[in-house]
Amino acid sequence: MNIGVYGLGRFGTFWTQELAKHGNTVVSYSRSHKDDIENVKLVSEDEVLSQPIIYLCVAISSFEEVLTRITSKIKKGCTVIDTCSVKIHPANLMKKLLPKDVYSIASHPMFGPDSGLNGVQGLPMVVYPLNCPSSLFDEIYKDLESWDLHLLKMSPDAHDREAAWSQGITHFVGRVLDELALQPTELATTGYNRLMSIVEQTCNDPIQLFYDLQRYNPYAKQMRMGLKGSLDYVMQELTEQEQ
Amino acid sequence: MNIGVYGLGRFGTFWTQELAKHGNTVVSYSRSHKDDIENVKLVSEDEVLSQPIIYLCVAISSFEEVLTRITSKIKKGCTVIDTCSVKIHPANLMKKLLPKDVYSIASHPMFGPDSGLNGVQGLPMVVYPLNCPSSLFDEIYKDLESWDLHLLKMSPDAHDREAAWSQGITHFVGRVLDELALQPTELATTGYNRLMSIVEQTCNDPIQLFYDLQRYNPYAKQMRMGLKGSLDYVMQELTEQEQ
Repeated sequence: MNIGVYGLGRFGTFWTQELAKHGNTVVSYSRSHKDDIENVKLVSEDEVLSQPIIYLCVAISSFEEVLTRITSKIKKGCTVIDTCSVKIHPANLMKKLLPKDVYSIASHPMFGPDSGLNGVQGLPMVVYPLNCPSSLFDEIYKDLESWDLHLLKMSPDAHDREAAWSQGITHFVGRVLDELALQPTELATTGYNRLMSIVEQTCNDPIQLFYDLQRYNPYAKQMRMGLKGSLDYVMQELTEQEQ
Repeated sequence: MNIGVYGLGRFGTFWTQELAKHGNTVVSYSRSHKDDIENVKLVSEDEVLSQPIIYLCVAISSFEEVLTRITSKIKKGCTVIDTCSVKIHPANLMKKLLPKDVYSIASHPMFGPDSGLNGVQGLPMVVYPLNCPSSLFDEIYKDLESWDLHLLKMSPDAHDREAAWSQGITHFVGRVLDELALQPTELATTGYNRLMSIVEQTCNDPIQLFYDLQRYNPYAKQMRMGLKGSLDYVMQELTEQEQ
């Protein structure tokens, strides 16, 4: 397939390389000046936006501004696929801003350069057709399926509800622990080493991704309040044990 | 070596089997009736207490009561080694309650039946002589070293300070997350799977171990307050981002 990738941050670069690795012809564009990146063909914004399939790999918090700016440049019959880590927000924007004759799919590859370091086989990716003929959706679905991804067709609402309590809580716990500047120790138990690896992986991602995950997922606040409530509860239990 | 293990809870059973596996002659005693356990020779309390080396594998919160009761039954020249997950508390009790002619070593094998499932090689164990001639301590140290453990000679105070911020925080986070009854999900990222494995491993241990780790380590409260402070801080940062 001929694919354009818009945005070459940490994830966009990784995604370009994965698409190319799996037999697609990929061109990419980044607003910020980028030097040569291995296996990435850099082109102009217009050229990326003239591809039949366009993956948007931009920060969640920039999504509205970018989509507003590029909408008029996308040709009739093209398919826009977002890759944001939340789904309700970009799905609503694509439905609202894109013309009827531009197709759209919501997607969330739930991995990145760290978790996908040794290959993406078996890793989960959510896809959902927004404005998209089923034959076209099937074609894109089957291409991704051929990567041996664990593909899940799930609505934006179901995604955000479930992701808040899995990816969302993991990133939140990771950032909370990171603030404590935990150190490696010779006393490290197996469990502590796992905890440290969560902190490390979480904090390899840009801080903006963390803020966006927490702010743009409407279920994230429930999760955070739940976590705080649980911490208070366990603290209280300990206090009662002491009395 | 001829060794007695006093206490056959989850850890005591595992420890008996490890000692036997590494060429020692081990007998064990448990106050609660125990059925046949694989590779464990059950004997009377008196017989366990007449061994030259006695490992105490009892709950931290029972340590004072047990030690008080058995002290007069332990023969001159024997060595008592505790295996508690905190060290200041049992070390002080052994120094206070055991007669001068009974030797004592503080120890903490920082693993158990879960983390040691595939062997204990490379796993950390803290040991520290309390009232113990150096030749005797060296002999016991060398025997444990021959298991390929990562042995660390560390004072009870240094242990508790460091363990609060490694093993202690891991168990605390595990129990807080367990209260939320997180579910497996098809959306699970690599990080979330790691988080779930921490919850599972933590909560395989008896709840009493959790309470004891938190209550009897004098540095655990600092850790918990730090964690709570960090959670409040990250929540506040998110609120400010939204304004």
